[in-house]
Amino acid sequence: MTAELRSRLGFLFGRRSVRVFAPGPVSDQILHLLLEAAMAAPSAVAKDPWRFVLIRRRATLAALAAALPNGAMVATAAVGVVVCGDLEVAHDRQLSYLLQDCSAAIENFLLAAHVAGLGACWLGIHPREERIQKVRQLLALPSTVVPVSAIALGCPGEQKEPRSRFNAAYVHHEGWGGSAGLASVGPA
Amino acid sequence: MTAELRSRLGFLFGRRSVRVFAPGPVSDQILHLLLEAAMAAPSAVAKDPWRFVLIRRRATLAALAAALPNGAMVATAAVGVVVCGDLEVAHDRQLSYLLQDCSAAIENFLLAAHVAGLGACWLGIHPREERIQKVRQLLALPSTVVPVSAIALGCPGEQKEPRSRFNAAYVHHEGWGGSAGLASVGPA
Repeated sequence: MTAELRSRLGFLFGRRSVRVFAPGPVSDQILHLLLEAAMAAPSAVAKDPWRFVLIRRRATLAALAAALPNGAMVATAAVGVVVCGDLEVAHDRQLSYLLQDCSAAIENFLLAAHVAGLGACWLGIHPREERIQKVRQLLALPSTVVPVSAIALGCPGEQKEPRSRFNAAYVHHEGWGGSAGLASVGPA
Repeated sequence: MTAELRSRLGFLFGRRSVRVFAPGPVSDQILHLLLEAAMAAPSAVAKDPWRFVLIRRRATLAALAAALPNGAMVATAAVGVVVCGDLEVAHDRQLSYLLQDCSAAIENFLLAAHVAGLGACWLGIHPREERIQKVRQLLALPSTVVPVSAIALGCPGEQKEPRSRFNAAYVHHEGWGGSAGLASVGPA
């Protein structure tokens, strides 16, 4: 039972951060589907504060890469996606909800990209003020729109094995002090 | 091509918030697999700041429900999972990364629960100070451990249709001012 379920969850364990891209296009139709997947995520009080800036122009991708330490590979990606949240739209105008909602949408996008055979990497922007300012300026973001992260997307130029980083020490039972039980249940 | 991909993304579009539970167990083996899925999410600098408190005791589930407005259904769930982040562990001790990392893990958990045929609902805790304090006290959380949200998990007592909330107005091109192009590409 669980072996079969584990197999069906392969899309989750197989999604890895891809930081090397091979040449090859990402069609608008596929990109549309990935954005549909992103917007299928739950959001607090269904406010859907997420906004997406798609970048294909090589010069803009290079400028984005320059704004992001560890983000050099986005210059070679087929598409860059800057995922933002609108603070005016987020539930109760709370940054916490904005970050949670956008992160769920980003994870959906990354999983969908993996299922589509593409490679992607989550590149942090928030809370680094310098990155936020550079990206805000590059993309002419309104003041209430917070860039949360960028996604580099393209044809994978590296292959990685599926994995989880499951750690039994991170699981507690009935309260912080409780650690018996499930931790001792191994994978099926 | 995209019709076939859309079908393979059914696990994303089919995941809906389930707020009504039917009687029935969730085995420790399944729960273990859902936690593996959660911990397969990416996290900033792979710090994996997420921590999970599993609750099966009926009295504790009732107390959790009492702490969460709109969370009454967790009292009837087979399992409650309080997803926390340890601020001491999060990249650069930043709450933003903690929230992003935990949210990606939560979304993975919810998707895996859906694939397993279970129902689940994301119940907000952070940033509501009153909820944080009640949950912290109930579960005896250390001071650096921030409860982000609770997940109610059980056998689904309601069925919902798959959907996305895709909105073309949320997609911009090359910068905030650009809205041409993809928005006009309909679903395949």
